[in-house]
Formats: sequence, C-alpha cells, structure tokens
Amino acid sequence: MRLSRYFLPVLKENPSEAQIVSHRLMLRAGMIKQQSAGIYSWLPLGFKVLRKIENIVHQEQIRAGHIPMQMPTLQSADLWRESGRYDGYGEEMLRMQDRHGRDMLFSPTAEELFTDVFRAHVNSYKDLPLTLYQIQWKFRDEIRPRFGVMRGREFYMKDGYNFDLTKEDALHAYNRHLVSYLRTYERMGLQAIPMRADSGPIGGDDTHEFLVLAETGESEVFYDREITDLTFGEREIDYNSVEQCQAVLEEFTSRYARTDETHDEALFNEVPEERRCVARGIEVGQIFYFGTKYSSALGATVQGPDGKPTEVHMGSHGIGVSRLLGAIIEASHDDNGIIWPEGVTPFHVGIVNLKQGDEEADAACEALYNSFTAVGLEPLYDDRKERAGGKFATMDLIGLPWRITVGPRGLKNGVVELTCRRTGESEEMTPEQAVAKIIEIYAPHRVNVF
Amino acid sequence: MRLSRYFLPVLKENPSEAQIVSHRLMLRAGMIKQQSAGIYSWLPLGFKVLRKIENIVHQEQIRAGHIPMQMPTLQSADLWRESGRYDGYGEEMLRMQDRHGRDMLFSPTAEELFTDVFRAHVNSYKDLPLTLYQIQWKFRDEIRPRFGVMRGREFYMKDGYNFDLTKEDALHAYNRHLVSYLRTYERMGLQAIPMRADSGPIGGDDTHEFLVLAETGESEVFYDREITDLTFGEREIDYNSVEQCQAVLEEFTSRYARTDETHDEALFNEVPEERRCVARGIEVGQIFYFGTKYSSALGATVQGPDGKPTEVHMGSHGIGVSRLLGAIIEASHDDNGIIWPEGVTPFHVGIVNLKQGDEEADAACEALYNSFTAVGLEPLYDDRKERAGGKFATMDLIGLPWRITVGPRGLKNGVVELTCRRTGESEEMTPEQAVAKIIEIYAPHRVNVF
Repeated sequence: MRLSRYFLPVLKENPSEAQIVSHRLMLRAGMIKQQSAGIYSWLPLGFKVLRKIENIVHQEQIRAGHIPMQMPTLQSADLWRESGRYDGYGEEMLRMQDRHGRDMLFSPTAEELFTDVFRAHVNSYKDLPLTLYQIQWKFRDEIRPRFGVMRGREFYMKDGYNFDLTKEDALHAYNRHLVSYLRTYERMGLQAIPMRADSGPIGGDDTHEFLVLAETGESEVFYDREITDLTFGEREIDYNSVEQCQAVLEEFTSRYARTDETHDEALFNEVPEERRCVARGIEVGQIFYFGTKYSSALGATVQGPDGKPTEVHMGSHGIGVSRLLGAIIEASHDDNGIIWPEGVTPFHVGIVNLKQGDEEADAACEALYNSFTAVGLEPLYDDRKERAGGKFATMDLIGLPWRITVGPRGLKNGVVELTCRRTGESEEMTPEQAVAKIIEIYAPHRVNVF
Repeated sequence: MRLSRYFLPVLKENPSEAQIVSHRLMLRAGMIKQQSAGIYSWLPLGFKVLRKIENIVHQEQIRAGHIPMQMPTLQSADLWRESGRYDGYGEEMLRMQDRHGRDMLFSPTAEELFTDVFRAHVNSYKDLPLTLYQIQWKFRDEIRPRFGVMRGREFYMKDGYNFDLTKEDALHAYNRHLVSYLRTYERMGLQAIPMRADSGPIGGDDTHEFLVLAETGESEVFYDREITDLTFGEREIDYNSVEQCQAVLEEFTSRYARTDETHDEALFNEVPEERRCVARGIEVGQIFYFGTKYSSALGATVQGPDGKPTEVHMGSHGIGVSRLLGAIIEASHDDNGIIWPEGVTPFHVGIVNLKQGDEEADAACEALYNSFTAVGLEPLYDDRKERAGGKFATMDLIGLPWRITVGPRGLKNGVVELTCRRTGESEEMTPEQAVAKIIEIYAPHRVNVF
C-alpha cells in the first residue's frame, strides 16, 4: 500500500476522551472512530489488524478440530425464554421488537442458538464429539462503556460450544480449548495466563479466564510468579489425545493463579512469599464447562450407546477478538506509539523515502515495494512529500515492527537502513539483504487477510 | 475435511417451506437453518461458501484501489435525522432504544456513517479520490421475508462509497465500480448484466443494477440478446485510466437492458425483434452516483484547489454477498443438487471411498487427501461406512465440482475415477494424474478462506 493512496487519519494531539494508552493510540493511529458510546467504526488500519487476529483465531480453532459457522446477530426472544435466561439477563441485553411486534434481541452470547442448531440436527452419540464455533458481532449494553474497544458495547467475539456424550469427553473438549487458546495468544505475541475464575451468568463450575498482565487491566489477579515462565512454544500436540491435552492443562494450571472473584488468601499464602504476585490483568478469553445446563433446558439429547436419550455435556469458550487489539497494545507500546508483534501487524514493513521526487530514491523504494508484494508480504510505502521526521513519527505511531529507510546518501553507498521498531536499532545493508531479512523474519508469521 | 468429523446435516426430504430451488437446496445441503422469519444460521458448509464469496469481493475491491474498513451494525438515530432519512425510511428500518433511552437502529445501509467518517477526517482535495467500503451484516425488516437468503431480513452486504472532488471524478469511480463488479461476478461463475435501474431511497440519477438471469428472479427485465454474449474475461485493466473504464462501461451498457422500473417500450422496440428478450432476473448488486446529496446534508466538504470549501461528489455501490449464494445456486444446479462453480466451491474435490475399511482403498484415499492438503487444496473425504449410492447422492447434493471415486476394483488396475459434477462424465486415471488434473483446474481459482 502506498500511503498517499491509503486512508490513515492519524491524530497529532492526544484525544481527551481516552483514559488508557491503547484507546489513545488506536484513536491517534487512525484505527477506530467512536460513533456512539462504546460503538466504533473500524478504520482501515484497525480493520486490517482485526481481520488478522480473526484469522489466527480461525486457524487455531480449525487446527483443534473445531468447526466454523456463523449465527445471526439478531435472535428471537423465544429461545431465551425457553432456556430461562430472557428475563434474568438484565439491562445489558439489547431488546427490540420487529415490525410485527415480535420480541427480538441482539445476541450477547449464543449458547441457546448453538444448542438449538444441535438439537435440530444431531441425533446420535455417533456424531459426537462436536465443537462448533463462530466469530461474530455481539452487543452488551454496558452501563458505562469505556477504554475504547476494551469495554465497548458492540464487540467482535469468538464463541465456541462443545457437545459431548459424557462429562469426561466434555472435559477433554475443555482442555483442548485451553491448549488452542494458549497457541492462539502466543501467535499474537501475548502471554495470556489461564486463571481460575467465576462463571457468572453462563453458569457451570469449571472455568478459566485468560488474562494478559497490564497495569490498566480491569481485574486484580493473584499468581505464583513461576507461571510467567511457561510458554507453549513450538511443541506439536495431538488434539485427539486426552493425555496430551490434560498434561498441558496441568502444566499451566497447577500453580496458583486466580482472579479476585475466586482468590483464596489461605491457599495463596502457601506460595513462597518471593513468588507471590498481585497485579492487574486484562481478560482476553474464558472457557467453561457447564454440563447439561442448556441441553437440559432446551432438550438437546442424543441417542446413547444404550439406545436411550441422553442429555449432552456442553461447555462454551470465548475469545474477545476486538478487545484483543486493545490488550496487545497495552502489552506492547512505548512513548512513540504502538509496537505490533509480527503475527498481527497490519503491514509487514514500512518503507520511508527520505527524498520523495529524487529519481534514485523513488526507484529504490519502488523496487523494494515490488520485491515484497511479489512474495506476498505487504509493505506500507510512505511516498508522501513530507519531512523525514514526520514520516518517522507516523511509522512509530502506527507501530510496524520493521522499517526500511531509503535516501540518496545511503544509495550512493548501495545501502538502505533497516530499523527495528522495538529496539530502535538500525543496520545498514543492501536493499536485497533487507528484503531477505524481512522475508526470513516473517516466515513463521504468515496470515492471509483475504 | 473428513466427513465423519464434519457437521453436514443434509436433509433427505424437501423442506415444505422452500418455494424456490436455491432455498430448498441450501436447506437440504445443510448450509443454513432458519432461526426466525428471514434470519438464518449459516451452518459450516454455508459459512464456507459465504466466506469465499466475501473474499473474492474483497480481492476485487482492493484490486480496484478501494479501501476496506468496517462499520458497526448499530448506529445512533441522530446521524439519520441529520441526513433527513430517519423518519422517511419507514418500517424496514429496525429501531430500538438502548438502556439510556437513546434511539438506535440496525444499519440497513451506511451512507450517513461513511460520510461522517469522511467529514471527520478528510479536509483537502489532495486526499481525493477516496473510496471506502465494508462487508458487514445489515438488517431490513422486510414485511414478507421469503426465498431463503435471497430475501432475508439479516443479510451480508458489501457497501462502498466514493468521495470525489468533481462530478467527472465521481463518474470515473462509478465506472471503476462497474468494471470491478463485472470481474467479481465472473470469478463466481456468474453472468450479471448491468441494467439501467431506479435509484429508490438512496437517491441520484445514475444507477445500474446487476442482474443474473433466472426464472425465479424478482424483477422483470428487458434486454437486447446481444448483451449476453459479452464477457469481461481475462483482460487487464488499469483502474486509474478514465478511458479504459469508460470504454468498458460503454461496451456493457450501450445495448438495451433495463429493469421494469425504467423500461421504455418505445426504445425497446428499436431493438431488432429477434434480439428482444423479456425474462426475469435476480439483483446481485447496484451502483449509484448521487452527487452531493449526502455531503450537502451532512456538511462533508474539502478545501478545493481554489482554497474554498467544496462539497464532495459521492456514489454508493453494493453487492449482496449473502444473496449471491442463492443467485449462484439458481443459476447452477440440476435435479440432483447444487453445482458449484470452481471459484466458490466450499471444497475443491470430493473423495468417495467405495469400501471403507478396505486396507488398500483407505490407504489410497488417505494418500489423495494428503496430496491435496499439501498443496493447499481442500478435499472433502467421505470416510463414512455408507453405501456408495448414499455417498454419491450427498456429493451431488452439496455440489462439489469434482469427485474422485476410489474402490478396490479400480485400485487393482492402478486407477481411480474422476467425475465432473456438471457433465457427469467420468474418466479413469492414476491417483497421481487425478491430483495433477485437479491442481491444474484450480490454478486460476485460488481463494484463501482464513
């Protein structure tokens, strides 16, 4: 993309309404625009990152054997009356009537709808296990929306639902989700720690929240410092293996890690004092096992091996896709702006032309641009007639992890400058070397947007 | 994907509520499930095709230089009051109040919101031309939703908006959209004819609808038969070239082709009688030029070259993404089911194992499966213990364009059978030849879903 032809409305001033850094930087970098309280337009740069995050979530869910589909945003109230949640859900549920006076609502979650699809189409235990999921816009009418996309009203969420014959199978599904979520967050450059949590209106006993440590987090968290040394890394896992998934669960949940909702002071005090941490965290996902709560209410049964109708065991599993942009920025920025992890960056590399209009500099930038697009990488080429300082400030603000600076002086010596956004370190090399290095860096981070 | 692990709830019986073939086949092939009148769940197979169509639309819009972003589904009523459309829009607009009693609506279209983003961020003619677009869920509260996704209430739509300094520039944007739409539909295996139409509540004088000829179409159309001989084909086009885009517009719109809304009997009679066609068509897109209607109402101006505030010239341009599934099926099916064009098929090839459990047949199927996935093609392998007849019927119903049949008898001779869904013709060849042929067929039709 050439910046002169893109729509990147960066702001010079800090917007006064933004209280936290991710909100401020998303507004300043031209990623979002508020349309109503807690409701945002996703401007081109924001939409691009949103789509990358969405696709990583899809890829990891599919890898785990879960099947994507999509529910409508609007639902009939009847199904929620059947499950008993319609009246109790409270004012966070946005309700409306259609032109025929039928009660409808904007989906805040979709246990009912997925259970309805299941009961309509699945009859036998032979069709289990089954995990269906979607990524779709949700609405929760927060009384005080704030912190930008971190606590918006309309938000983009992955929600998945497992249907299993037995509690054991459902707990394997729970573990499988835990593993897939660990992989998902790591691909986005995040450390998200599973912590024992409270199940809230979803119900059920077993639930973990995934929290990214950040000063601006909405939850107080208590954990054993050792847990931050764990990484999933490159290990291969067989998602069908009960033992392998169980082992990962145990590895990642055996140390003390809880949100304030479930914090147990006495248990926490058993952790050696020097490892006891109290901090704040941003919730970026949650997994639940809730047994037959919804299958019982909605009559979702299958014929069991004994020929008798059996209520299926279920769980639901969410990732806050739009909120993740905020969480990533909270975890990865400096005074100059965002620092995108390679896995989610909107463009792979920035190209800054120090002297737009100079024949050699222009030609060198074009050649770099074409080299990247030819291998499927997306450069953002700042081809505007601006001062170098302004171009650097924009690149730093929008946070591309790598920048190539091209100027007449360097070209005389046959070199350009490759700069790492995170360290600020620069290195001179030939354009060919710069291209090769960028290709190498992104080899493990290829996500197609469209 | 292995069918035993997929969620493909095909129906044996014809659902009574479906009046047209695409609705019937989408229900029978397990692509959608109705949740309320005109509101559908997109089951895995349906969602997969929806995503492919979406990605083709994205690719062609980006190729034309248009910039993707995304608006919220819910909007404040205030903006629509400002444009003067809130009261007039009528009962098709779904209105609601949030918990604070603020009037909101579910976006039926987004002229207001895009104009609002534009006026907030663009100040100078130097930032033009600019075309922004989104693909997002919309809602129109049709009084009698019918024909499945063809006339649903919640639907997925691409809507784009061009902002230009002059009428001439805006007409070039109009032409650019026309060209990109021709390419888009052809990639989906559709012939969609641009026809002069009526602008309705969007407003403006210049508008063309794109219609796919089909007996079940909602519009009566009148056209010169010669127009059906035109194809866009493989031609290269420079979207920045006013002349090239204008030439395509002229080529595709100089012959008589109108919907009943704008039909002119006298003009039509000037077409030689043997070329005069009266038929029915399905609307799959529409482009508009409406000048300064919204920029004037909402105060969207830029500083012109003369330094004075100038209202921008606009148009809007829509493609009915979810409706396209219905249109494609109406245009491409037979008595046995859907026949997907290669560009949008949910899986590239079906693999039917005639004797599941036979060691050699199983191994041959697995080898084929792995050969396809290794090159990024997606096979659907029917690995169920079913009769061959049932497997063939399912493959025909869901409409994969190519099927490989593997059985012990053929394998003795070193061959499998490759069958074309459209012609029904089969050919025996080695597994390696079958893989090579499928790779060759799909070379021009690669669309990544995630």
